[in-house]
Amino acid sequence: MFTFHLKKSAGPAGPRLGEMQTAHGVVETPVFMPVATYGSVKTLTAEEVGELGASIILSNVYHLYLRPGVELIGGLGGLHRFMNWPGPILTDSGGYQVFSLAPFRTLSDEGVLFRSHLNGDQHFLTPEKVVELQETLGVDIMMCLDECPPFPAPEKDVRRAMDLTHRWAQRSLAAWRRGGQALFAIVQGGMIPEWRREQAQALAELDFPGYALGGLSVGEDKDTTLAMVEATTRELPEGKPRYLMGIGTPEDLVEGVARGIDLFDCVLPTRNARNGMAFTDTGRVIIKNAAHARDPGPLSPDCGCHTCRHYSRAYLRHLFMSREILAYRLLTFHNLYYYFHLMARMRQALADGRFAEFRRDFYAKRTEGGILSG
Amino acid sequence: MFTFHLKKSAGPAGPRLGEMQTAHGVVETPVFMPVATYGSVKTLTAEEVGELGASIILSNVYHLYLRPGVELIGGLGGLHRFMNWPGPILTDSGGYQVFSLAPFRTLSDEGVLFRSHLNGDQHFLTPEKVVELQETLGVDIMMCLDECPPFPAPEKDVRRAMDLTHRWAQRSLAAWRRGGQALFAIVQGGMIPEWRREQAQALAELDFPGYALGGLSVGEDKDTTLAMVEATTRELPEGKPRYLMGIGTPEDLVEGVARGIDLFDCVLPTRNARNGMAFTDTGRVIIKNAAHARDPGPLSPDCGCHTCRHYSRAYLRHLFMSREILAYRLLTFHNLYYYFHLMARMRQALADGRFAEFRRDFYAKRTEGGILSG
Repeated sequence: MFTFHLKKSAGPAGPRLGEMQTAHGVVETPVFMPVATYGSVKTLTAEEVGELGASIILSNVYHLYLRPGVELIGGLGGLHRFMNWPGPILTDSGGYQVFSLAPFRTLSDEGVLFRSHLNGDQHFLTPEKVVELQETLGVDIMMCLDECPPFPAPEKDVRRAMDLTHRWAQRSLAAWRRGGQALFAIVQGGMIPEWRREQAQALAELDFPGYALGGLSVGEDKDTTLAMVEATTRELPEGKPRYLMGIGTPEDLVEGVARGIDLFDCVLPTRNARNGMAFTDTGRVIIKNAAHARDPGPLSPDCGCHTCRHYSRAYLRHLFMSREILAYRLLTFHNLYYYFHLMARMRQALADGRFAEFRRDFYAKRTEGGILSG
Repeated sequence: MFTFHLKKSAGPAGPRLGEMQTAHGVVETPVFMPVATYGSVKTLTAEEVGELGASIILSNVYHLYLRPGVELIGGLGGLHRFMNWPGPILTDSGGYQVFSLAPFRTLSDEGVLFRSHLNGDQHFLTPEKVVELQETLGVDIMMCLDECPPFPAPEKDVRRAMDLTHRWAQRSLAAWRRGGQALFAIVQGGMIPEWRREQAQALAELDFPGYALGGLSVGEDKDTTLAMVEATTRELPEGKPRYLMGIGTPEDLVEGVARGIDLFDCVLPTRNARNGMAFTDTGRVIIKNAAHARDPGPLSPDCGCHTCRHYSRAYLRHLFMSREILAYRLLTFHNLYYYFHLMARMRQALADGRFAEFRRDFYAKRTEGGILSG
């Protein structure tokens, strides 16, 4: 079972409020999905991820396929049970990972032959196999295998990736057993708005339960990313959820929502936490800066997260300088809380019909607090 | 304020049940203190350490002195506030660390000159300075600076260390401001039972609030360790708490309690967790073993810890093989829970007058379950 209900919308490429119903629960959109690459949101238990405010998480079929193996997880009752996460899960198809991580790959119409980045073993994945793997994992939202072209790339390569992605989407649809799981198609098209529109229209005709925007934030500038988002969302069916893959910063989330995106995922809040960076409304805090050494205040004075309620910047800096694992956890708590809270504030603003005002305030605060950046 | 009340005792070197009252709360003894070297029990928040069952924790004045600095912590309200731990804290004096970690040291009657293992900076610590540092940290139990001889060592070196340790204990006592904090002396004496007895007697005459057994588990065999423990506890005042420093395995805790020890600390449960080893009643589980790859069962079927209630061996092995931080945390949860629970079971057995029976059962279980060892 999978349904999407649009509660409020400002047009095909405008901000919207929705509700996604999956076999493992309801997701209020727009929503941010934390990344559990190997079946754990790095440093956290699934229980903590839920307490922080996640309603859906993302995992990677590419990584789980290589380690510990999808069949192993299936034999233990599926990914939800394996990682003790009772809520919805979306898995990425591995398309992006094969093209960004595998040290060697050969593409054919049939599928992609590649070597594992872990041990060099050779593997062959097809669109049908990738659907099957995700069905075995028992996830709520599956992604079609796609080809993600590099950036920059010759136009003919972008075109070929689009066409292959389309044929693979058709094959994925045919392989999909239409159980309780949804299948999303991925729109490619490089940085050419006409091609983004063209692929969006073509995939829309296939009537998938949802659509993703792939191949973005791969090196292009922000204006280009947002132009591609706008070109795509404008052509997608309004009643289907839209997922902007692998993006982004707090600013990206605000701009994505403004252009009609419903789902986001990104490693930024978790990875940057482990690198000592905290997101706040007024800017970014680099915890190793000497200025924090004796600071008894929290990362962010208005934040209600566990870290801000209990720990000072001085303690966080000390832990980080001492390479204590607790530093990574406490910053992860904060950053994910900040992301979930940001999405909740956007949903509230959308519900109250004051999203434009929210967006203005969001940028105003950041400018005022620029001193905290860096 | 510091008091120790002996609730039950089987003689000077026999098992005993007690209650230690400190400025930050009551500690039921015998007790295990988890180690928070740099002001964090590795991978855990202070809140989690409390929830797991810790009633007192240990930290290291040597480490905190070098990073972030004792004066910095004092300026932020002391160690309790810095790390958000409301309960009792004992700090080690740094004697052992100076002798085991510092790359260079020169000992004089006045104190010890050493270089930091972090950056090579030169430092000079005296018994008076070490008391002052611990008073600045605001800890509940302070340790005197001592000289911990290596093992094996020539008898004359052991003798010199004993004599210096005694003089330093006298100076520590004179420097102690007798606020709300207790000061414990450390008994050395190498592996010579007569000298252990001699130093225990001599320090007992100085009437410290408590006594520690130092310089053990430094390479000697288990029988020797236990013989030294017995020789020492027999000479210590029965009404004062005894602390066996840096020891040990679950077996060591049982044998220490059997010989009249009240306090233990060790990095074993936390460090071994990060190395993939779990303690259970039936033996040790090495989580990376292939036998666990598809095992849906918990680390220990009878264990009530968060890890055992929620996660399979298969998941733990996967996380460990994937070097996920969550693996280290979940194994740390389990091991500390096991240690705290073991101490609680011993206290219950002592209260019920069936410690001998408990000890017999403890070993019986381990033999039966030897297959789990690894």
